[in-house]
Parts: sequence; structure tokens; C-alpha cells
Amino acid sequence: MGQPLRHSLRVRYAECDIQGQVFNAHYLTYFDQSMTELWRAAFGGYTKMLERGIDLVVVHAEVDFHAGARFDRELTLEVGVARLGRTSMITRHRIVDGSTRLATGELCHVFVDSRNLAKIPIPRWAREALAPWVLADCQGSREGGSHGRQG
Amino acid sequence: MGQPLRHSLRVRYAECDIQGQVFNAHYLTYFDQSMTELWRAAFGGYTKMLERGIDLVVVHAEVDFHAGARFDRELTLEVGVARLGRTSMITRHRIVDGSTRLATGELCHVFVDSRNLAKIPIPRWAREALAPWVLADCQGSREGGSHGRQG
Amino acid sequence: MGQPLRHSLRVRYAECDIQGQVFNAHYLTYFDQSMTELWRAAFGGYTKMLERGIDLVVVHAEVDFHAGARFDRELTLEVGVARLGRTSMITRHRIVDGSTRLATGELCHVFVDSRNLAKIPIPRWAREALAPWVLADCQGSREGGSHGRQG
Amino acid sequence: MGQPLRHSLRVRYAECDIQGQVFNAHYLTYFDQSMTELWRAAFGGYTKMLERGIDLVVVHAEVDFHAGARFDRELTLEVGVARLGRTSMITRHRIVDGSTRLATGELCHVFVDSRNLAKIPIPRWAREALAPWVLADCQGSREGGSHGRQG
Repeated sequence: MGQPLRHSLRVRYAECDIQGQVFNAHYLTYFDQSMTELWRAAFGGYTKMLERGIDLVVVHAEVDFHAGARFDRELTLEVGVARLGRTSMITRHRIVDGSTRLATGELCHVFVDSRNLAKIPIPRWAREALAPWVLADCQGSREGGSHGRQG
Repeated sequence: MGQPLRHSLRVRYAECDIQGQVFNAHYLTYFDQSMTELWRAAFGGYTKMLERGIDLVVVHAEVDFHAGARFDRELTLEVGVARLGRTSMITRHRIVDGSTRLATGELCHVFVDSRNLAKIPIPRWAREALAPWVLADCQGSREGGSHGRQG
Repeated sequence: MGQPLRHSLRVRYAECDIQGQVFNAHYLTYFDQSMTELWRAAFGGYTKMLERGIDLVVVHAEVDFHAGARFDRELTLEVGVARLGRTSMITRHRIVDGSTRLATGELCHVFVDSRNLAKIPIPRWAREALAPWVLADCQGSREGGSHGRQG
Repeated sequence: MGQPLRHSLRVRYAECDIQGQVFNAHYLTYFDQSMTELWRAAFGGYTKMLERGIDLVVVHAEVDFHAGARFDRELTLEVGVARLGRTSMITRHRIVDGSTRLATGELCHVFVDSRNLAKIPIPRWAREALAPWVLADCQGSREGGSHGRQG
């Protein structure tokens, strides 16, 4: 029922390599920016999230590169929650330039206590706050998936 | 029969984030450095590789984060060839700090013609040059794997 | 008579270091983004500028750091042309977070032919296109200054 | 009497931009690496320095770009102490590729208490530890210089 959260960014000159396209590592930085926007939309921002006692640690990242992002293009970044486990969350990411799909990928984060960084179950309030971006079609599909993170 | 290629690097201050550890995207930059060392060992360097007519484009990357890398630590990076397909290559990566495993992952690159960037079969000379770093135990194991890149 | 060009950006998590603030080198990337916006405002974009035959190479950069930029803050970046020489241009930069001045600095760029990268005099059309952002109060003040770039 | 401290690094692919050369902001990251090596040589490392009660904050940076650094080249970085004020230190930096000078520059750091980040006079032990890298020819020359940082 949920939908991806969207925001946009412009490719910086500093992010493009000798091949004239965004260097691959920067896509993870782009995904991370999507996470920041998700915290803002769901929790009122990263700082608010810390104050409410939770932080997140990334444990897995993967990216499929479909086409190169070019300097000064305005890209659209999408993020949705593909799975909410007991202590972990998988987000699904997509980066497009107009109608051209550039990259897709996933991040897996583990929820931790923001004071001692110990793993914690996802609090109910966080689960509810993330609900609008939980992707209906993906929710169960990863259960038996290759990652097998059961949180 | 092959063995991973090893080199080392020191974590830079600029690479560490507010949590005091290397920011996740930089691990892909570290993996890329391992690729540069692989081109050097196998082909005499990236420029030589281009001159001989081949270039590579990354199509997939994934990283598992096991423990955080700390500022000023000297890390060991390992890379081995997990699969040589018809036009694509999967490399397996590992980053350790002493006996502590920090990150593992894989990259999938496609071989292209260095002049027009069209996909090409991996030349025999390149295949032979990479042989010392082809990991015996992994060679066939990805054939039916989840990525299913058949090159 | 001219005024600075303004745009805004949000500080990324990846840009903040162990001290919790934007790492110093990223301010030059921020300044570079201001240059990209200046090319857009004056020339219709970097690509258009290249097509019209000019490119720019940075020969000097300096930054004064007044206060640290924090994660997720929306900063305002200002750039104005402090001096248009025969072949070089000095731009003046300012980064603020609300009413707090974070950094000020200057870049000196040399105009080059976009085909062969040879130094060229600033074309009249480029000079005219940049006029709205030439800072009245700075124009002559650097003439005898410590940089002594006479272009 | 002092001499610059030297170390070397290899240019990464990720650091080179569309023009095929190291993007300008990365030179400040290179300079910062020289600082890390200076802390190691003088104080036994950054962590040791923090434990002894001091930290440093950069307040000014400048770079002159003489020639572009190319991918995979092994560069030599030099750093020397150009001035030790009461609370501040100016370091002079040089980056060369063989006999080709690529960049020169300066950083100004202020010494702070590592617990509360309040400005402090440079301790005698730190002054003595830095002595081997204090450049004889520069020591006094900046006293009346354009920066005018009196510490």
C-alpha cells in the first residue's frame, strides 16, 4: 500500500570520473541521502530519531548499475521499505534520470540503541512511522530470499 | 589454485564519519583500489590494459559490513577472481584489520572495447593473465547463483 | 553593481567527519558547485559553455573556516565575481547557515580553449554574461593584492 | 634547520574527474594525510595526541595548482612547519610527481583542548616534538604576512 519516497539531487562535477559518469561508490552516498530523507519524513529527522533512542547501522549494501549518471543532470531518487524484520530493515532504492533507470539496489540496516549501539527490536512507534513507505509488493517476497536476514 | 591479491591502505581521516568509522560508500572505493592493483599485477597497469584494447564497466556491487574500520588503521585488502564468464568477471573482496574481518563483497565487471565501450568477450590473453588470482573454490559455485550473470 | 548568486544545499552524512562537522576539503566541492550554478546562470550550463569554446581550470583556492557545518543543515552558498582579468577570474565565496557565517574563500580560474586547453583571453560574450555577478566593491581591490594574478 | 616530512600515495581512480586529473578538493584531503603523518612522526599518532590533551582545528587552507595529478601515479607529499605561533601553526605543503611540482599550499591550524575544544597555547612538549620539521627559511617570514594570524 505504501509508496516510495522521492527526492532529487544534481550530479556534482566532483562525483564524475574519467569515464565522464558518476563513480560507482557515490551511488551508496546517494542511497544514504535517500535514507536521510526517509528519517526526515518518518521521524522528523535524524537528530530526532537519535533523541528518541534509536540509531541505524548498515550491514549490507548492493547496487545494480544500469546506465551512467552524467554531470549536472537532476536525478530522482526513490526509496521504499522492502522488509521490516524484528531488528532489521531492508530498503529498496532506485535512481532515475527522467525515464532512464540508472541504478537500483538495496540496503539492510540494523536498529541499535543510540546510546550504547546494542541491537534492539524495532520499536512500535518507528514501525508505525515507516508504514507509509512500506512497499506492498515486496513485503513478503524477501522472507525466503538469499539474504536471509531475519533480524 | 589461485590466491587472492593483497595490498594495504591506511584509513584517512576524511573517510570516517560521525560514528567514528569509515563511511559505507568508501568501501566501494577501497574495492576499486583492489581492482587497480589487480590490473597492475595482471596487465601491467590500467593504462596498459586500455592500450591493449579492453576496459571494464562495473554492473553490480555488493558489500557485507562486519565491523567498522577506524581512522589511521592500516587495512589489508584482498581480491580474487570468483568467476570468469564469457564477457563478465566477478571478483571477491575482503577487507581485514589484523585478524578482524571488516567487510566482504563482490563486484561484477563487464569487459568492453576501450575505443567504443561495446561489450566484448574476455580475450584469451586477459584470461591467462588473470589466472593466478582465480579462486579455485569459487570458480563454479556462482554458476547457478542468484546473480545469474552469464556474460 | 552586481550581486552574489545564491543557491542552497543540504549537508550530507558522508561529508561529516569524526568531529561531527563537514570535513574541510568538502568546502572546495561546495565552492565548485557554486561555480556550476554560475555557469548555469551566466552561460546556460557547463556543457553550453564548452560548446561555445571555453573551459576553465582552477589555479588557486583558499578558504577561511569560521564555524563548522553540521549534518542535515541546509546551507546557503554565495558566489560573486571579484575580478575579471584578461584570462583569469577570481570568484569570492561565502557559505552561511542562517545568520551564521561558516566559510569564506576565493577561487582563481584561468580561461582555456575547450578543445586544446590553451590559455585564452576571456571572450567579450563571456565577460558580458558574467556582468550581473561582478561585485562592485571588489572589482579593483585585488589589483595590487597578494595574489598578483594579472591574467 | 628542519626538513619537510615526506610520504607517498597513489592517485585513486575515484579521485580523478572528467578532465582526467585529480579534482581540486582532493588536494586538501592529501594535505590532511600529510598532517596525519606529521602527528605520527611528532606525537606517535593522532590518538596519542588526543590522549595528551590536544586536538587541532583547521582555520585556513590555500592551494596553488601547478599541474594536474594523473590516475595511478605515485605522488610524493611534503609537509613542513612554516610557523609556530602562540596557539596556531602554519604548515607548508608540496605535492610532486617525480620532478614535476603539482601543487603547493598552506594550512593554518589552531591548537585546542581535546576535551572541550577551547583554544590553548601550544604546549612546550608539542613545540619540541615538532622541531625537526620546522622549516628554517620560513620561520620568521610569515610574521608580517598577509594572513596575520598571531595566535
